[in-house]
Amino acid sequence: MDYSKFFSADVPSFLRSPVREIFRKVDLSAICSFAGGYPAAVTFPTDQIPSLTAKVLEKYGTKPLQYGATQGVPELREVIARRYGVPVSQVQITTSSQQGIDVCSRVFLDPGDAVLADNPVYLGALQSFKAYRAEVLPIRHSETGSPAKFIYVIPDFNNPSGKTMTLKEREEVVRIARELDILIVEDSPYRELRYSGEPVKTIRELAPERTLQLGSFSKIFAPGFRLGWIIGPEELLEQIYVCKQCLDLCPPVLDQYMAAEFMGSGALDANLEKTIAEYRRRRDLMVSLLEKYMPAGVSWTYPEGGLFLWLTLPEGVDTVAMYDEALSCGVAYVAGSFFYTDGSHRNTMRLNFSFVDEAKMEPGIQLLSSVIRKSLEIR
Amino acid sequence: MDYSKFFSADVPSFLRSPVREIFRKVDLSAICSFAGGYPAAVTFPTDQIPSLTAKVLEKYGTKPLQYGATQGVPELREVIARRYGVPVSQVQITTSSQQGIDVCSRVFLDPGDAVLADNPVYLGALQSFKAYRAEVLPIRHSETGSPAKFIYVIPDFNNPSGKTMTLKEREEVVRIARELDILIVEDSPYRELRYSGEPVKTIRELAPERTLQLGSFSKIFAPGFRLGWIIGPEELLEQIYVCKQCLDLCPPVLDQYMAAEFMGSGALDANLEKTIAEYRRRRDLMVSLLEKYMPAGVSWTYPEGGLFLWLTLPEGVDTVAMYDEALSCGVAYVAGSFFYTDGSHRNTMRLNFSFVDEAKMEPGIQLLSSVIRKSLEIR
Repeated sequence: MDYSKFFSADVPSFLRSPVREIFRKVDLSAICSFAGGYPAAVTFPTDQIPSLTAKVLEKYGTKPLQYGATQGVPELREVIARRYGVPVSQVQITTSSQQGIDVCSRVFLDPGDAVLADNPVYLGALQSFKAYRAEVLPIRHSETGSPAKFIYVIPDFNNPSGKTMTLKEREEVVRIARELDILIVEDSPYRELRYSGEPVKTIRELAPERTLQLGSFSKIFAPGFRLGWIIGPEELLEQIYVCKQCLDLCPPVLDQYMAAEFMGSGALDANLEKTIAEYRRRRDLMVSLLEKYMPAGVSWTYPEGGLFLWLTLPEGVDTVAMYDEALSCGVAYVAGSFFYTDGSHRNTMRLNFSFVDEAKMEPGIQLLSSVIRKSLEIR
Repeated sequence: MDYSKFFSADVPSFLRSPVREIFRKVDLSAICSFAGGYPAAVTFPTDQIPSLTAKVLEKYGTKPLQYGATQGVPELREVIARRYGVPVSQVQITTSSQQGIDVCSRVFLDPGDAVLADNPVYLGALQSFKAYRAEVLPIRHSETGSPAKFIYVIPDFNNPSGKTMTLKEREEVVRIARELDILIVEDSPYRELRYSGEPVKTIRELAPERTLQLGSFSKIFAPGFRLGWIIGPEELLEQIYVCKQCLDLCPPVLDQYMAAEFMGSGALDANLEKTIAEYRRRRDLMVSLLEKYMPAGVSWTYPEGGLFLWLTLPEGVDTVAMYDEALSCGVAYVAGSFFYTDGSHRNTMRLNFSFVDEAKMEPGIQLLSSVIRKSLEIR
């Protein structure tokens, strides 16, 4: 039976995530993966989960098992509002911050609209914008007068580049958004994971009237919970709320009560402190290993936080072509060109330093280095 | 600031769920609500949840807290495949069966396409189809040659009507789908909740090559988990998988492991037996109370399962107009016209019999009856 005729005209613009495609085929535990954006399992408060479950059931009875409000349960909205200094009415819970991106795309984008975005740009966002047949342009294109709907940025510890925007750069984003009179989607999943340097004001703080800030529990609690949030003007959240009704009615309820309890009791902050110490060590280890093993002509970003750094190899090295060789040697990364809408920058790659055990990191970087060296010789 | 210009052209077609809007404003516990589609909290395996949590963490370590596969965790796909006698490759887990409807809409519908559907039709489905600017037509319209993409039906214990399709009616749906060469979305959230009569073959069993069957844990486990599934041809699931990547990456992971353990161990079937006994009593009670209290000229469906029955009042009674009066008296229902795309059938209403405690049901039906009587007098 030929199924192709049943599909929407949008289907050809659905992008597959190369990372998810790899993980579909390769056993993560069998290789040294610098590819995903996975948190380290040691940072999960695993031991606390059973008692957290028992506690919220004791406290809230059967409510955590019943349908909940579309905006999220009040208890979770309240702890988030308190943490970030905003009214509860400006907080919408989402079923993952990926859903936050998707719901913003759906509420704001029409086919042919433009999104001005980081370049390189987070793949999950690119997937979502493309699925709505929007054009994704670098932010500097704004001056060409494209019919842009919003600017999408990860200002803190960017995925994939690892870079953090300076205050001046953030102010420039706000200036452009105000000049074009468009919105800003500030994707902020890593902001709480700072290992060095000083925090910079968020874009939401600079332009609360036009910013939707997306947050996530995936990196500060556990991604298995699929919980995120959107902070933004009530008039925008009102439409997002109506849209979310038909997406999944409400976010997972037991998970929300557990996240509320975890955040509200202070356990999240205690766990975050340990997580930051762990990731700081891993970042420093990876940077020192890159210094030790990488051949001349390879450079990388030094991230002040988050999960990623960005490698630039000598011109002519093709990280897409090199990928199968790397995988067969037992090491994985994501080719940098996947994060560019035009597929350029084929001599770059994204490395994740949060997931791989410290003990595995040295052999992993050695493997990667030898694959790169071989590729340099062939060139 | 005027935000209206930022919204997509799709936004005006987003329908608000009247049920969710009511629950946003009214404290459910303060009134007698026959309005929602909420399961009874007494049917939740609340006492088992903490040990279920502990068990899956012991069994699977940190995996339940990490990101999972987009198709769902293998353990859950396997128990579902086994239960319904299909290969694992034909099972996709969804973050609620509402997401199942949404993802089908997104993968198959273009603006202007038609969906042939039950009439009256489930509101959550109508919301989703409308959001993609599809036209929703009754199934019998199929002969007019509309550019339909799929047929959407709830064959077992329909929401809202409470009706169950006979084998002959199902075969007719299949005949139409084959004649038009279109797909069938068989929404099946209540099928396991049968209180009397004999099971009829599913549409999937009649036409596996063109049916996507949606299942849900909301009525057989707990809706707070937001878990459902799609069973269908691999070629269709492959596109649904790619689409789901950009919706939320993967369904809630800990919840999936708990559902897998609960279903796989047999605890679900034991709990289901109790649930069925409970709901059978509530259905019978509601029907006997309707017989006792409703004025002449009011009729209702007798559902063999599920959560709803459908009331038809004498012509001229307007259940939309009557609603505020009912709510101020402390009783809620959903006006039947909300389930019709043309807003007709204003003398009908949907009543839910699963949510209200048996002790509250008699005063609730008495209240409703007196509101209806008053409305009949005014008329």
